[in-house]
Amino acid sequence: MPTNSILTAEQLTGLVEQGLRALPIQGEPHGLYQPVVYAIDAGGKRIRPTLVLASCNLFADELQPAMPAAMAVEVFHNFTLLHDDIMDHADLRRGRPTVHRRWGTNAAILSGDAMSVMAYELLAQSPEPMLSALLGAFNRLAMGVCQGQQLDMDFEQLAAVSQEQYVGMIELKTSALLSGALELGAIVGGAPQADVDALVELGRHMGIAFQLQDDLLDVYGDVAVFGKQTGGDIMAQKKTMLTVLTRQQLDVAEREQFDALMRNADLQREQKVEQVMAFYARSQAQRAVEQLVEQHFDLARQALASVAVPIERKAVLQAVLNKMAGRKL
Amino acid sequence: MPTNSILTAEQLTGLVEQGLRALPIQGEPHGLYQPVVYAIDAGGKRIRPTLVLASCNLFADELQPAMPAAMAVEVFHNFTLLHDDIMDHADLRRGRPTVHRRWGTNAAILSGDAMSVMAYELLAQSPEPMLSALLGAFNRLAMGVCQGQQLDMDFEQLAAVSQEQYVGMIELKTSALLSGALELGAIVGGAPQADVDALVELGRHMGIAFQLQDDLLDVYGDVAVFGKQTGGDIMAQKKTMLTVLTRQQLDVAEREQFDALMRNADLQREQKVEQVMAFYARSQAQRAVEQLVEQHFDLARQALASVAVPIERKAVLQAVLNKMAGRKL
Repeated sequence: MPTNSILTAEQLTGLVEQGLRALPIQGEPHGLYQPVVYAIDAGGKRIRPTLVLASCNLFADELQPAMPAAMAVEVFHNFTLLHDDIMDHADLRRGRPTVHRRWGTNAAILSGDAMSVMAYELLAQSPEPMLSALLGAFNRLAMGVCQGQQLDMDFEQLAAVSQEQYVGMIELKTSALLSGALELGAIVGGAPQADVDALVELGRHMGIAFQLQDDLLDVYGDVAVFGKQTGGDIMAQKKTMLTVLTRQQLDVAEREQFDALMRNADLQREQKVEQVMAFYARSQAQRAVEQLVEQHFDLARQALASVAVPIERKAVLQAVLNKMAGRKL
Repeated sequence: MPTNSILTAEQLTGLVEQGLRALPIQGEPHGLYQPVVYAIDAGGKRIRPTLVLASCNLFADELQPAMPAAMAVEVFHNFTLLHDDIMDHADLRRGRPTVHRRWGTNAAILSGDAMSVMAYELLAQSPEPMLSALLGAFNRLAMGVCQGQQLDMDFEQLAAVSQEQYVGMIELKTSALLSGALELGAIVGGAPQADVDALVELGRHMGIAFQLQDDLLDVYGDVAVFGKQTGGDIMAQKKTMLTVLTRQQLDVAEREQFDALMRNADLQREQKVEQVMAFYARSQAQRAVEQLVEQHFDLARQALASVAVPIERKAVLQAVLNKMAGRKL
């Protein structure tokens, strides 16, 4: 695999998979490492480590120095999934039992803790001159994810969440890891600060757009394409941008009806989803969220455009953005 | 507070408390940081951060450069207590409800995760030239604690645990943090590698001796002095050095009797503790464990003696060892 030129998305993903296969996660005690192997083997799109490498490749031809940071980001991401699945009482992840369902909550807590440490072990293998900057970026990313998860849990207890609050939560829970991945890669690649800042901005808008798309897909997604039942967020009474924008459009009496409907746990799934969707339709929330998605993808593209490197180096990140923006409802 | 000479134990603890009061742990979202403040405020002997500073003070007069590492170790230690208390279903910690009892398991998982990240944030404030070495030492410490906790849980499922296995578990679960604390301080102080190694050895034996003392205190401790009922380990069917050495002395038939007694959950507390203690007495396990404790404190003192600095610089660590060794049954 060439690592000394501008690579394609496939080549970057190949490097990532190669790196993941070589991770030192087959250790003792077995009970600690087995769930780690299971979690990493589960697959996924590997978007975050690919972003690390793609961001580095904007500025540098040599990508091996960015591999430790790329691996660190992917291991940390999977650690957060392990603990999130405990907190959300999730039974399945990528079609298989979650770690806490398979090995118990204690194992999922402890193996998650170990993965968090592993992420720092990996990061520590980065080139020493940039270690301090990388550690700073990684810590911001990590703390952002924790803060975002806390806000998400806090929102479950709140009747009203504003659009600003909701976007602020996504910026932490989803964008922090994407921004952080791009920042780490740019630092390893030797980017000037202005370009690092632009890439952080890219990740921020990419994360917001991506999460708002998820909010839409959960309601309007094609079951055949996405392979899961729609309306999951509605049934879980989750705040999404659809509920936030819908509530904005309602008068006090309607808002009380809507909130009562959302809280109603006795309604049949089909009825409840249909009635909530009627509220969404009346407030034209779908179109409003779609516009927000487009806006944030546009802002992400503008951020990429502002990075001061030749356009041919931006092809992969451009393609990643286009592919994401093209996720069909 | 002077920080440019050889400090006393009280002065070191004063520096630690001052550092802890200045920790940036009053952030938002409130739900994330409130349990962190609660955990740090709970007190404790602050032995680990004091070891960081004392170890640095062996080699250097200026202790401020070691403060970030000292704080990192204390925050990480308290993080492990948060998650251990979930795994052990512990209701009380230092006389107050545990974090998961007060705010729920999800909060305890997530605030613990945040504390782990905070520990790395603090460590990252260490002097940059030694950051790579400090990060390496900290990662070893952190992974050791995770591995030790896993082994401790694994042992609950095993009928037989050898003396070597048990000591190996303690070396990870208890010694890793003490060794790591001494190592971090020595690195910041600019110690030569031979002295760093000696201090790691000191921490290893100190940890083993300390845990074996705990095993004894849980059975033979003076309730008036230690303020809790003895026999807790026996009732929780925990492996301790007393059970390990007792089983070694028994023939096959007696061993079956002993194992059955340990597993018996129907016996009254007083009866069960009395009968298990009779096995300990017959096998002279108490005296054997006391000898091991003395041996490991001796080895810790020898390790300290081998550190190539003037004896007056060693007064604090000598005093720490003597104070620990003097814990009365």
